[in-house]
Amino acid sequence: MRSPGRRIEDELAAFLGREQVLPGTAAEFLHDATEERGVSGWADAVVLPRSADEAAAALAWCYERDVPLVPRGGGTGLSGGAVPQGGVVLSTDRLQAVRSFVPELWRIEVEAGVRTADLRRRVRENGLLFPPDPGAAEQSHVGGNVATNAGGPHAFKYGTTGAWVTGLEAVVPPGDVVRVGGTLRKDVAGFDLKRLLIGSEGTLALVTAAWLRLVPAPESVLPVVAFFPHLESGCEAVGDVVGSGVVPAALDYLDEGALRLAGPSFPGRVPEGAAFAVLAEADGSEAEAASVLDDLVRVFEGSALAVETGFDRGALWRWRDGVSLAVATASGGKVSEDLEVPVERLVDAVRGTVEIGLRHGLTGVSWGHAGDGNLHATFLVARGDPSGQEAARRACGELFDLTRALGGSVSGEHGLGLLKRDHARWSPRVAALQRQIKAAFDPKGLLNPGKKI
Amino acid sequence: MRSPGRRIEDELAAFLGREQVLPGTAAEFLHDATEERGVSGWADAVVLPRSADEAAAALAWCYERDVPLVPRGGGTGLSGGAVPQGGVVLSTDRLQAVRSFVPELWRIEVEAGVRTADLRRRVRENGLLFPPDPGAAEQSHVGGNVATNAGGPHAFKYGTTGAWVTGLEAVVPPGDVVRVGGTLRKDVAGFDLKRLLIGSEGTLALVTAAWLRLVPAPESVLPVVAFFPHLESGCEAVGDVVGSGVVPAALDYLDEGALRLAGPSFPGRVPEGAAFAVLAEADGSEAEAASVLDDLVRVFEGSALAVETGFDRGALWRWRDGVSLAVATASGGKVSEDLEVPVERLVDAVRGTVEIGLRHGLTGVSWGHAGDGNLHATFLVARGDPSGQEAARRACGELFDLTRALGGSVSGEHGLGLLKRDHARWSPRVAALQRQIKAAFDPKGLLNPGKKI
Repeated sequence: MRSPGRRIEDELAAFLGREQVLPGTAAEFLHDATEERGVSGWADAVVLPRSADEAAAALAWCYERDVPLVPRGGGTGLSGGAVPQGGVVLSTDRLQAVRSFVPELWRIEVEAGVRTADLRRRVRENGLLFPPDPGAAEQSHVGGNVATNAGGPHAFKYGTTGAWVTGLEAVVPPGDVVRVGGTLRKDVAGFDLKRLLIGSEGTLALVTAAWLRLVPAPESVLPVVAFFPHLESGCEAVGDVVGSGVVPAALDYLDEGALRLAGPSFPGRVPEGAAFAVLAEADGSEAEAASVLDDLVRVFEGSALAVETGFDRGALWRWRDGVSLAVATASGGKVSEDLEVPVERLVDAVRGTVEIGLRHGLTGVSWGHAGDGNLHATFLVARGDPSGQEAARRACGELFDLTRALGGSVSGEHGLGLLKRDHARWSPRVAALQRQIKAAFDPKGLLNPGKKI
Repeated sequence: MRSPGRRIEDELAAFLGREQVLPGTAAEFLHDATEERGVSGWADAVVLPRSADEAAAALAWCYERDVPLVPRGGGTGLSGGAVPQGGVVLSTDRLQAVRSFVPELWRIEVEAGVRTADLRRRVRENGLLFPPDPGAAEQSHVGGNVATNAGGPHAFKYGTTGAWVTGLEAVVPPGDVVRVGGTLRKDVAGFDLKRLLIGSEGTLALVTAAWLRLVPAPESVLPVVAFFPHLESGCEAVGDVVGSGVVPAALDYLDEGALRLAGPSFPGRVPEGAAFAVLAEADGSEAEAASVLDDLVRVFEGSALAVETGFDRGALWRWRDGVSLAVATASGGKVSEDLEVPVERLVDAVRGTVEIGLRHGLTGVSWGHAGDGNLHATFLVARGDPSGQEAARRACGELFDLTRALGGSVSGEHGLGLLKRDHARWSPRVAALQRQIKAAFDPKGLLNPGKKI
C-alpha cells in the first residue's frame, strides 16, 4: 500500500505536471534556519509552481482535499515559519521573474522568488536603492521578506520591507489570485489588505509577486564603528546619537559576548577591553554623508575606547552579516530570539540576556539593531545537546517575560512562526479579531497551519 | 411626543452626563468640507467624550440600542466621511491631551483630537518634524488624519500619516478599548491591525489616541517654484526631476486653470503665458538642501518660463494651502475629487479633467501632489446651482472611469467617505474579504454606516 504522502505526491503530479512536484522527503524543503536548534518538519509533497496561476491551482487542489499548504521562500527564517508539519510545501523557487522595472520612476515589480540580494544588485546597477537588507540576503526571497516584514540594519532610517511595498499579488484560499495595491504610491480606497498580508507569515495568503517602490541610491555611504568599555556607556552612546538629532542610516550593536566571538574576523582592530560595539553608517550626498559621519564620530568620542572609520563597506557588512554564523560556530549551535524593546530599555534587555543565560548555565550574547531596540538574543548551545536545548528553551521563556515586562514584543522582524506563536499576548478582543481575520482569508485553516496565531 | 432624536439625546445625557451631550441639531457637527457642494447630514445627538473610556461607553450604549455612531475629527474631510445620516456623532474635540512626549527618542503619544498644526508646532519647538502636512492642518485632527491616512505635499519624500504611526488606541464594537502597537518601532507579532485601522475612515474602530514616530527636523528647507508654458512640458519636468535621481521633499503642481484662479495671491511673480506650475522643496542639512535646490533648478531651467527661489516658506505654503479656497471662491463653489494615478499618467489625468469639464459645460481645473500622481480634480460650480451640481456629478463619474482606465485609484488621500463609496472597484474575493473584515470589527454595521464600503 502506498503511504498517504506518496498518494498526495502522485495525485498532485498528475494534476500539476510531474516536473512541478517533488517528493515530500526532499530534505532541503523541510527546515529553515532553525535547523541549528534541531527544528525540522515533514511533508507529503513539494510543489514548485512557475506562475501565480499554477500556485493558485496547487492551493485549490489542497483546499478541496483538506490538505495543509506551507508557503516557502528562501528557507532562511529564524522562527520555523516555513517548517512544514505535514501537507504540501509550496516553494517560490521558480517565481523568479522581474516583471517590470522602470528605473526613472523608481519602481519594480518582481515575483516572490527573486532573491533579496539579486533585487538589491539589479536596482543598484540603475542608481537606485531597495533599502531593506535583512541577513542572509543571498538566499532569502522577496516573498519571505514580505511575509515577515523583514528589516535589517538600514530599517533604522528607511523602515522595514512593508514601507517599500506598494502592491501585492497573492493567492488566497480557496484558490483565487488577487491583487491588492499596485504601482500607485498612495491609495486609500478600501481597507489596506496589502498591509495586512505584510508580516502575516503566509497564514493569510501566498504572496506571488510584489510591486516595490525604490529610491535613488545615496551618493556616499560612510560606516563608523565605535567600541565602548561597558554595556552601559555603549547604550548611552546609542541614545546620545538619537538625542543629538543626527539621523544615521544604520545603528547596530554587538554586546561583549558577541564581540568576543565575532571579533577575530572583524575587518579592523578591536581595542583591548571593548565590551560593546556600535556600528553606524552615514549616507547622503558626499557633503551630507561626511557631515553626518562627523556628527557620529563626535558623539562617540565622548565615551568610546576607539572610533574607527575608513572601512571597506563590503567587508564590514559581510562581517556583520556573518556574526550569527560566527556565534553559532563557537559552540556548535545557538538558540537565537528576535526581540524588540523600546530603545531606552535596550540596556536592560542586553543585560537580561546575559543574566538569564547564567541562571540556566548558558552563555547569553546579543547583537542587533540598536536604534530600533531590536536585539537578537542568543544562547550558545550545541545542536546535539538535548539538556542544553532544554535549558535554552526555559531561558527563552524568561527572556520573553522580560521583554513583555520592558514593554516590548517577542518579534521585531523574524515573525512568530512555529516557535513563538504561543508567546505573544493579546487582549481577548484583539485575539478574537485576529482569529476572525484568519478565518476570513482561510476558513479551513489550511494555510501554514500552526504558525503565527 | 418627543422625537426619537430627542429621546436618544436625553437618554445619552442621563447615561454619560449632560455636559458630554449636545442636541443632534448642533449644525457644526452635521457637515464637513463637502458642505461647499451641498452635502449635509442629520443626527440624533452629539457626544463629546473626554477619554477613551467615555468614548467606549458611548459606543457600547449605541451598540446595545442599534444606534449608528459616526466618528468625527476636525470636520475637514472632503468625501463626506464624517457626515452623519442619523444616529450619534462622536466628536474627538475633547480628546486633546499630549499623553507623553520624549523628544530625545523622537516619540510622542497624542489623543485623537489634537490638531495637526498644533502637533507639528509642538514637536518643531523641540527640533523635530512630524512630516504629514495635509491641508487644513489648523482644523484637522490627528485622529482624522489616521482615519484617511492623510498625505499632503511632503508625503512625496516622507510618506503618508501611516508611515509615522507606531501604535493606536481605539474603541472597537461592542465597546472595547484596544491597543494595537505602541512605542515600538518594529513589531511583527500578530497581524498588523494598526495598519488595517489606518485609512479605514472610522468604519472599523474609533481611534482615540496614536503613538507617533518623529524625525529630527531638517536644518534647511528651500522651496522653488517653476512655471511652464504647457501642461506637457510641466509634467515632463516632474518626470525629469524623478528621473534625475534627486529627491525633493515635495513635488506639487497647479494646472493652468488653478494657476489663473490662485495666481493673484501668489507671493511672487507669475510669468506671462504660464500654463503649469511646479512647487518643489529641497531639505536636509544646509549643504544638502542647497545642493538639492541646485539640482532642481537645473532640471527646471531646461524648459521653464521662469524658476523662482528665495521665498518666505510660510507665505508660500499658506498660499498653497489656500489654493482650494481661492478656486472655490472664484465661482462660489466647487466639486473636487481626490484621484491617484501612476505618475507618468498625470498629464492624461490633468488634461482629462479639463476635457471632461468642457463636455459638461464646466470649468475643470486641478492641482495636487505631482510626484505621487495625486490630483485634486475640480469642477467650478456655484453651491446654489442644482443643474451645475448635477453636471458635475456626471463629470465626476467620467473622471472616475478615466482614473480607472489610467490604472489609478479614486482616492489617494481623502478616502471614499459617503460620496465615493460606490466608485471603487474590487474583485469579488477582495470585496468579500473587506466585508468580512468589516463584520469582524463591527458585526452590527453601526460604525460610520454607509461610508467607505
